[in-house]
Amino acid sequence: MHDGTVTSLFSADARAFLPSAIRALAPLLNDPSVLSFAAGVPNAETFPARALGEAAERVLASMPARALQYDVTRGFLPLRERIAERTARRGLSGDATDTILTTGSQQGLDLLSRVLLDPGDVVLVEVPTYVGALATFAARRARPVGVRRNEDGLDLEHLTEVVTRLRAEGSIVKALYTIPNFQNPSGLSMNGPAKDRLALAAEELSLFVLEDDPYGELSFGDAGAYDATPLASRSPSSVAYLGSFSKTLAAGFRVGWIQGPPVLLARLELGKQSMDLCSSTFTAAILESYLAHEDYDAHIDGLRDFYRGRKETLLGAMAAHFPPSLSWTDPKGGLFTWVTLPEGLDARTLLPKCVAETRTAYVPGESFVVEGDGRRFLRMTFAKESPPNLVEGARRLGAFFRGEIG
Amino acid sequence: MHDGTVTSLFSADARAFLPSAIRALAPLLNDPSVLSFAAGVPNAETFPARALGEAAERVLASMPARALQYDVTRGFLPLRERIAERTARRGLSGDATDTILTTGSQQGLDLLSRVLLDPGDVVLVEVPTYVGALATFAARRARPVGVRRNEDGLDLEHLTEVVTRLRAEGSIVKALYTIPNFQNPSGLSMNGPAKDRLALAAEELSLFVLEDDPYGELSFGDAGAYDATPLASRSPSSVAYLGSFSKTLAAGFRVGWIQGPPVLLARLELGKQSMDLCSSTFTAAILESYLAHEDYDAHIDGLRDFYRGRKETLLGAMAAHFPPSLSWTDPKGGLFTWVTLPEGLDARTLLPKCVAETRTAYVPGESFVVEGDGRRFLRMTFAKESPPNLVEGARRLGAFFRGEIG
Repeated sequence: MHDGTVTSLFSADARAFLPSAIRALAPLLNDPSVLSFAAGVPNAETFPARALGEAAERVLASMPARALQYDVTRGFLPLRERIAERTARRGLSGDATDTILTTGSQQGLDLLSRVLLDPGDVVLVEVPTYVGALATFAARRARPVGVRRNEDGLDLEHLTEVVTRLRAEGSIVKALYTIPNFQNPSGLSMNGPAKDRLALAAEELSLFVLEDDPYGELSFGDAGAYDATPLASRSPSSVAYLGSFSKTLAAGFRVGWIQGPPVLLARLELGKQSMDLCSSTFTAAILESYLAHEDYDAHIDGLRDFYRGRKETLLGAMAAHFPPSLSWTDPKGGLFTWVTLPEGLDARTLLPKCVAETRTAYVPGESFVVEGDGRRFLRMTFAKESPPNLVEGARRLGAFFRGEIG
Repeated sequence: MHDGTVTSLFSADARAFLPSAIRALAPLLNDPSVLSFAAGVPNAETFPARALGEAAERVLASMPARALQYDVTRGFLPLRERIAERTARRGLSGDATDTILTTGSQQGLDLLSRVLLDPGDVVLVEVPTYVGALATFAARRARPVGVRRNEDGLDLEHLTEVVTRLRAEGSIVKALYTIPNFQNPSGLSMNGPAKDRLALAAEELSLFVLEDDPYGELSFGDAGAYDATPLASRSPSSVAYLGSFSKTLAAGFRVGWIQGPPVLLARLELGKQSMDLCSSTFTAAILESYLAHEDYDAHIDGLRDFYRGRKETLLGAMAAHFPPSLSWTDPKGGLFTWVTLPEGLDARTLLPKCVAETRTAYVPGESFVVEGDGRRFLRMTFAKESPPNLVEGARRLGAFFRGEIG
């Protein structure tokens, strides 16, 4: 067949697939001589490779046939039990049955989108929000509509106004997608009362909530200083909680999960069966063995120290070197800070020049922003570069933006 | 929210999800005291656990950060290179770029369905066909239409007739789904000339072909005795080839792949990005290291001996114990034989009685059959039970059916 014949076969969904703006920048960003604030990934040096290797050995010694075989669709039960125990400590009420393993939480988002969203359905998203979720919603031809997020949490007046208007127009508003803790890309968080208020508002508006929480355990504060309890602990019957080991143990294992009400889980299970039968038994069994034999909490504490140190280094250097007309968020956890440029600068059009002149890269914010002008924003991560490189990169970027402001 | 409120949110696709008839039988089939011809899975004892463990060690010693990190969406390049080298020996022309790793070939089917099928589109399937593919097509609300399969291959007259009729009715016939080699569930195969004829017919009818080949290397014959070259080697521009390591190395690793024309691969990549970013880097890297250090061909030869031996044992016992009014296929490879009961017997309604009376289980054929009466058929695998159990199970089943025929 000719290429044109093949493309003529593409489904309406496939025609709506959203190319990743970030992955499109890869040639610019993956040059190893470029200092990168752009990566959207954790620092792989923080992954406990040796302990995971020992866990792999234990798994293959103790249950080779099971670990190498297909599993039930909800996934390796002993890991689901550990997940449910652990999230119970954070206020979730479900048990292992109310948990389904997914190929990272990205697959969780996709699975939830397939089960909940028809073409044209509205899914409310934060402004800004995770670009990978927008790609997933686009692949369902759902309609993302933005709700403002600020330092305190979601703007609930705006939420109510948007939902009321959309419903008056006859739109079907299916769900609200939120990352309450240490959000990607903004680095913003919701404190406990903000979560209480959001849970209440969602209930009043009859909104089902997709709560994405890949960073929830990566708080920089002392235990108790920040309330990272999930929304799902407040409204278990109307929240699907998405968790992940990708930021804490091994992104390359692709192990995430969804916890939610039983009636939803049953349908997610059917959907996942048709999607891939089950996720990897082997990587799930390794994580379970890791959790059984190692001190995961101590490991998490180490990660928090690691990322807090990097964050402080970067933000300190930004304060020293960035011009005063730029502002940025001070994240309480996670991997990102969100920078606002002065009126008139466009982060995307400046990027090629910035990389060429300074050998330093960031991610333009535009593709994270579904409504309003996203051109003044950019995302920076402190996860990848060493402390000296964080300082040097901030210095270079500061000089670059100073020059652009003129 | 009440359960009813949550279910009211389900998408049209989710309402069409097809519960797996086989998984629904699990309580009956998973009783360890029941001799099972029902499992649809390879024998996990054949997986090279020790060599895979050594490969895992090598991977974690040599590239921990890479193996534990996210990968590009098409997946771990060195494995794609080995796959392309290996399939080139079987006649495929694409290289690593024309290959995308998937979470088992089930995800490959799902990905292809999302890219190619709109609700209502026709996908032609063999009668009988793999029930997991039917679940995937159902989740897209596509319309599977059956084409007869016989000892020689697909019934091409029937294929032409069906396509002509459907198109005259205004239906959109998007693709043909086929398992040419050692089919699940029928155990039937197509020899070389049958594949040549099918490739030609598909071209004449402008049918894109989804070629599912999880069993292609598990031939029971001498090398050369059966032509297992893929359809994709005959029509590379109009075939998506689905391969898998699930039957040969480790189902629980969930590593499969698609090879196909570049214009399709680019769209599959976008789709997969939104679905899970990438499949597991770690399991892909382990398989690559295994292929680099071990003699995979020798391992495959061992598998062929293993399954051939089991097949001969089972079919020998069936010939000795089954009543003459039953017939079955003699597979040239793979894991299954397909049994036809005499007129009047219904494999599904008999199953509970059979399990209760004989402690022996099979899979009723009905859910593999999209058109015509599937009640007289059942699928048996020789993959799971030991040779003495295969004989004993065949003896019990033979006595049971003899009693039912009366």
